[in-house]
Amino acid sequence: MADKKFVEQITSMEEDFTKWYTDVCLKAELVSYSNVAGCVIFRPYGYALWEAIRAEFDRRFKETGHQNVYMPMFIPESLLQKEKDHIEGFAPEVAWVTHGGTEELTERMCVRPTSETLFCDHYKNIVHSWRDLPQLLNQWCSVVRWEKTTRPFLRTREFLWQEGHTLHATAEEAVEETERMLNIYADVCENVLAMPVIKGKKTDKEKFAGAEATYTIEAMMHDGKALQSGTSHYFGDGFAKAFDITFTDKNNKLSTPFETSWGVSTRLIGGLIMTHGDDSGLVLPPRMAPTQIVVIPIAAHKGGVIEKANELAESLKAAGLRVAVDASDNSPGWKFAEYEMKGYPMRIEIGPRDIENGTFVAVARDNREKTILPIEGSAGKVKELLDAIHDRLYKKALENRERHTHTAHTFEEIREFAKENCFIRTAWCGDEACEDRLKEEVGVTSRCMPFGEAPVDDVCPVCGKKSVTTIFWGKAY
Amino acid sequence: MADKKFVEQITSMEEDFTKWYTDVCLKAELVSYSNVAGCVIFRPYGYALWEAIRAEFDRRFKETGHQNVYMPMFIPESLLQKEKDHIEGFAPEVAWVTHGGTEELTERMCVRPTSETLFCDHYKNIVHSWRDLPQLLNQWCSVVRWEKTTRPFLRTREFLWQEGHTLHATAEEAVEETERMLNIYADVCENVLAMPVIKGKKTDKEKFAGAEATYTIEAMMHDGKALQSGTSHYFGDGFAKAFDITFTDKNNKLSTPFETSWGVSTRLIGGLIMTHGDDSGLVLPPRMAPTQIVVIPIAAHKGGVIEKANELAESLKAAGLRVAVDASDNSPGWKFAEYEMKGYPMRIEIGPRDIENGTFVAVARDNREKTILPIEGSAGKVKELLDAIHDRLYKKALENRERHTHTAHTFEEIREFAKENCFIRTAWCGDEACEDRLKEEVGVTSRCMPFGEAPVDDVCPVCGKKSVTTIFWGKAY
Repeated sequence: MADKKFVEQITSMEEDFTKWYTDVCLKAELVSYSNVAGCVIFRPYGYALWEAIRAEFDRRFKETGHQNVYMPMFIPESLLQKEKDHIEGFAPEVAWVTHGGTEELTERMCVRPTSETLFCDHYKNIVHSWRDLPQLLNQWCSVVRWEKTTRPFLRTREFLWQEGHTLHATAEEAVEETERMLNIYADVCENVLAMPVIKGKKTDKEKFAGAEATYTIEAMMHDGKALQSGTSHYFGDGFAKAFDITFTDKNNKLSTPFETSWGVSTRLIGGLIMTHGDDSGLVLPPRMAPTQIVVIPIAAHKGGVIEKANELAESLKAAGLRVAVDASDNSPGWKFAEYEMKGYPMRIEIGPRDIENGTFVAVARDNREKTILPIEGSAGKVKELLDAIHDRLYKKALENRERHTHTAHTFEEIREFAKENCFIRTAWCGDEACEDRLKEEVGVTSRCMPFGEAPVDDVCPVCGKKSVTTIFWGKAY
Repeated sequence: MADKKFVEQITSMEEDFTKWYTDVCLKAELVSYSNVAGCVIFRPYGYALWEAIRAEFDRRFKETGHQNVYMPMFIPESLLQKEKDHIEGFAPEVAWVTHGGTEELTERMCVRPTSETLFCDHYKNIVHSWRDLPQLLNQWCSVVRWEKTTRPFLRTREFLWQEGHTLHATAEEAVEETERMLNIYADVCENVLAMPVIKGKKTDKEKFAGAEATYTIEAMMHDGKALQSGTSHYFGDGFAKAFDITFTDKNNKLSTPFETSWGVSTRLIGGLIMTHGDDSGLVLPPRMAPTQIVVIPIAAHKGGVIEKANELAESLKAAGLRVAVDASDNSPGWKFAEYEMKGYPMRIEIGPRDIENGTFVAVARDNREKTILPIEGSAGKVKELLDAIHDRLYKKALENRERHTHTAHTFEEIREFAKENCFIRTAWCGDEACEDRLKEEVGVTSRCMPFGEAPVDDVCPVCGKKSVTTIFWGKAY
């Protein structure tokens, strides 16, 4: 059978999760490797996933008053150097342009790894008075970081993302913005991508180069490893001072504004794959799937089957669903495997016998459950089935996370739990030495200090000093 | 008056068209200069214009079966060199990346000036059989060409564009595609952007580096200069051979496929400005304007005025129009000038007396014509007024082109007409020597050999040899 053969091409998740992941990326035709070291090609289906994710965020950004801009992709070296922590963090991993045409540049420029410096330089020019604040800007673009290893969506030298950059009259407003955007990230992850996330704050060691505080959403992948899925940074007035940005406030006093930045990237596609996928391939959450339903005519050569399949598809489209019909001459078995690989949330089978009965069969991608529905007037029921798929995907991911989250009270317990990929919840003294020790001796890094969690212990399990926070540890992508 | 002061900041078109253009770009807040030499910042309104234009094209590309992808932004030097004419055309104007982090690269890479070489490399990997054809791919991205001069939208080192790249089993199909995309370009320019264009073929001298034929749409700006507004290239099998792309055809024979590429860019924004703008600023065609109508409450402090303005705006939005309300405490005069500068196609004035009469005043941006309409049920009429604006803008641009298009029969006539910016229509022998002579002695370049124009003369006015085509000459941006 054609479908059998096709599916056999994927490594099983349990056997080799890394290989399974790469197999899905390639066989579902999300990416292709290129001859440009460290970069991948986003193929049509992979790019369509990004377009779908982008649309969800872009709408929310605009609803909260943000506007899109486009900054140059180059940053002159002197501009990158203006904020000390920032250049230290990024200099080792940028690509340098040294020549334009046949001429050597008088000052080399890097390809943007992130654009704080460009936005600051721009803000310096356009912000003068309190009337010019807040500035709520965002850009969709690609950035470059010279990574040594390559994994599609997770780690590539060039990747696609959005970077929001805002400027505020007060620290309070800037902190509020940082939190607002983190909440938008969490909303899209949970309610659109069906990926449960833990919201929290990064430790000083793990925060963004130049930030005063970095907030993060952390998701757990199927294999128990963490994926940092989006970050939101509060800069205080550090960048503004370094770039000499000032404004005249309402009392006619010269003040320094406060800044934020926040970003999500094509990593989220990697997150989708590793959260929901299975041994048949990709499983897409219905609210973001570019195509939610594929209609497959059975015994399509029989008179009227294709027509009825098209009619059904049109009626579902009219109800706002994203539907395709595959009336090609490939076998139904081949098609089933193909659309399972591509993770379409639902397939509809409709053949002569169904048509005789006035029904069709809806098959959910995630659990293969079949539902027989009447051809007429089932759009509402189909939507319910799609919502149920979303809920199951979310629940399954949450259960996976809960099953792989442990609370540890001693160093030995941490070491024991860390033998498998998981989140380890502990108390923490806030000292970087304990963080370093856990990294070196146990191989886990701090994921975040979660918001609103009850204290685990009074003392740090690593050093025994007074605890100041609850923290999650884990191994991360 | 506030509006007077504001408008005085723009240079008049007749006085200095170049300065007028830059003034509009800056005062309408479309762009800002950056500290990155040769690059500009697309500010929110400038980027919104690009988003609007992009949406129009993207929809048409998808309707004709094209899919979006994303290729790496870097091209290794050896890849760029594979097609000889191509590297000769682009090598002098690319930016070279030589270092990644602290390490020198073993092979330098350029930032893409265009991506034919990357697509070919990809096609070689994914095309094997006739079943894999056609490939109809497109990408939206930025490209870099190391220009010496900078003019916002028209000539910058980095600019935004789309590049379509397609691969076909036969030459006929590829030629058809080249023409199809040129027609889509012309459709959007004329029916959305209200910019009349001349469709034609470029001479060998002016065609794209590596192309067998380049088709173009040429628009005339208000000052009589030409703007090449979009190009569509037929490559034959040249690139495919250089990259060793082959496929097994239906007869199981190894064949070489045929290729096209086509692109439009943020130049079109420059085209919009220079086609429709006037001494009060930008004039946007209503079908692409991000905001079509701004509602301005008059005597807004009076009870009920702002409420009624909002109500009216909501009812127009409900009819599918893009509407904003400016209820800020700036004076109406300031607002009138502001939205004229930004080119909003229509403003609506509504004050206490209007409300008493159950009416509002619609003012067209292009000719300032006022129309009094009833508050209830005028959405249809407003749409008609917007369509009329589109038609007037198109007609005005067409008349400008016709007024500045001359047919010449002798070299002297060409020289005489070329004293002013215009299109000069002549016969041509097809010899590059005549083209070179006109460039050197008269200062005009060939714009295109128009499709479907009657022959002008039997002989070339430059050399007296037999004519093979009609051709347009002009000065171009």
